[in-house]
Amino acid sequence: MLEANRRAHQHGIDLSKLPQLLDMNADTITDNVHAINANCPDDRLKFIFKHLIQHLHDFVRETSLTTEEWMTALEFLKETGKMCSDIRHEYILLSDTLGVSSLVDAINHAKPPGATEACVLGPFFTEDAHEFQQGDSIASEGKGDYMYVYGKVTNTKGEPIPGAIIDTWETDGHGLYDTQYADRTEPDCRGRLFSAEDGSYAFRAVVPVSYPIPSDGPVGKMVSALGRHVFRPAHLHMQIDAQGYEKLTTAFYPRGDPYLYSDAVFGVHSSLIVDLKPVTDKELSLKRGFKDGKTHMELHRDIVLATPEEGQAARKQTMPAVAQK
Amino acid sequence: MLEANRRAHQHGIDLSKLPQLLDMNADTITDNVHAINANCPDDRLKFIFKHLIQHLHDFVRETSLTTEEWMTALEFLKETGKMCSDIRHEYILLSDTLGVSSLVDAINHAKPPGATEACVLGPFFTEDAHEFQQGDSIASEGKGDYMYVYGKVTNTKGEPIPGAIIDTWETDGHGLYDTQYADRTEPDCRGRLFSAEDGSYAFRAVVPVSYPIPSDGPVGKMVSALGRHVFRPAHLHMQIDAQGYEKLTTAFYPRGDPYLYSDAVFGVHSSLIVDLKPVTDKELSLKRGFKDGKTHMELHRDIVLATPEEGQAARKQTMPAVAQK
Repeated sequence: MLEANRRAHQHGIDLSKLPQLLDMNADTITDNVHAINANCPDDRLKFIFKHLIQHLHDFVRETSLTTEEWMTALEFLKETGKMCSDIRHEYILLSDTLGVSSLVDAINHAKPPGATEACVLGPFFTEDAHEFQQGDSIASEGKGDYMYVYGKVTNTKGEPIPGAIIDTWETDGHGLYDTQYADRTEPDCRGRLFSAEDGSYAFRAVVPVSYPIPSDGPVGKMVSALGRHVFRPAHLHMQIDAQGYEKLTTAFYPRGDPYLYSDAVFGVHSSLIVDLKPVTDKELSLKRGFKDGKTHMELHRDIVLATPEEGQAARKQTMPAVAQK
Repeated sequence: MLEANRRAHQHGIDLSKLPQLLDMNADTITDNVHAINANCPDDRLKFIFKHLIQHLHDFVRETSLTTEEWMTALEFLKETGKMCSDIRHEYILLSDTLGVSSLVDAINHAKPPGATEACVLGPFFTEDAHEFQQGDSIASEGKGDYMYVYGKVTNTKGEPIPGAIIDTWETDGHGLYDTQYADRTEPDCRGRLFSAEDGSYAFRAVVPVSYPIPSDGPVGKMVSALGRHVFRPAHLHMQIDAQGYEKLTTAFYPRGDPYLYSDAVFGVHSSLIVDLKPVTDKELSLKRGFKDGKTHMELHRDIVLATPEEGQAARKQTMPAVAQK
């Protein structure tokens, strides 16, 4: 016994200070775990684990989970771990498909009324995108159907924001990001540009298309077992960063996509749905730089940035009382 | 759009039957995920995921989890996956240390009043244990301090159960199971015997000692961050299987162990605590087969098995109403 005390002390544990708890049954075990975790020196960690344990245990009790079901869950988590690599994070995909990523995003990136809503970053942003001038094309020739994107970056008062850094990326006409091609040498269908003096921006791109999330792993199997499909609706990513404003990570979703209402990762907000308008005016098409003045789609969208103060005020509303204590 | 419908059909999905949902914010996303999962063809799976999603999302909302904290959690899960191998299941250890294994056990193996309580199996049971006769020693010479274990196997009416298969296993005096030695050639400190005509059993063993759970991985780090130690109190495992009765997996914990009230995996029930009694009677010690009639500890414990009907009735009480619907 003294030996055990000595060993515990080596681990920085004073056994006499631990709660004297026993009798783990379905009714008492949760309080027992809380009591043992009450020694946690980090208040935030203690708070998080208190809620984690409570929900995990309530889940098991409410479902009267069987031993076999719980083992299936633990095996699923082990398999999910096996699927991870330096370039694949199957747990992020799990979080995405359970709607948790989108929820965490909604809580942490809530915006004030009038500001453009945020949505999940996704796994396809890269740091190596080229810089473009207004009107340039971010997609090389032959990558898909032509699309012209333009609008204005302003604050919530409607004042233009010049010099905002605009990062944008999208799939090609095959539903693939450039990084999904094994022979990628250059960035494509992605680029960085800056808003003009009057806050305006414009660039050429291709019409993005819907695509499946990686579905050859445990998460894909889970999604299928739940009777769901694995597709994301088409979208154009945009990330806007301007001094004095909160960085905005968002995306625009063309109306009419059949997956718009069943996004595999719950990313769509109705305020981010845009109408693509066909432009058949050959003169305008030539002026915008499209080859042979071909018919193209037009995406017109203004972007409204929030200040850090406006963002903070909005987030206060999304944070439940318990977490503000 | 037609192309997307065609691709969805290839996955067995009828898009027109999916819920038409949008606007994922902190208040609405949970219902959205429920609605999408409502197509699940397996009722039990649907029920489990409904509760899983609700608790996972409530947890995130109640803690106003930050993006960084959620990424830390996902990285932790990824690291836990990396620690798994054919002989190590770090997720089981995670489940153990969060009290979930013990809770699942309590729900699934609840026993009627009077029957011996169950507790977690643990990872150290093996199939290769040798068979022993009454009075034999399951531990080879020099493995620890002598212990004599005896008692009677009965049903809840007190009637003896003959021919019950008794599997038992324990640590040696160093706090290690035989399987933790790299040079293991034979099973040791484990064995199988059968109860006699009058239900009695007796065998020699060594006094088990407390030991740390594997703490070199992410779970060990988590337990330390929570301000907890990593020790399990000393115990002797027993698993009893007799025709007409429920198989019982349990363990007996000698009173006085300093970790008894803070078991790292929440396995102890007070009804499973036993008093070890020193036996100094040389004659008795010789008769029991101990070398030179040395002083030894005595563990006297009767075991009461439940019938499947008795067990089922007990479990009905531990299963909340919601799961019985």
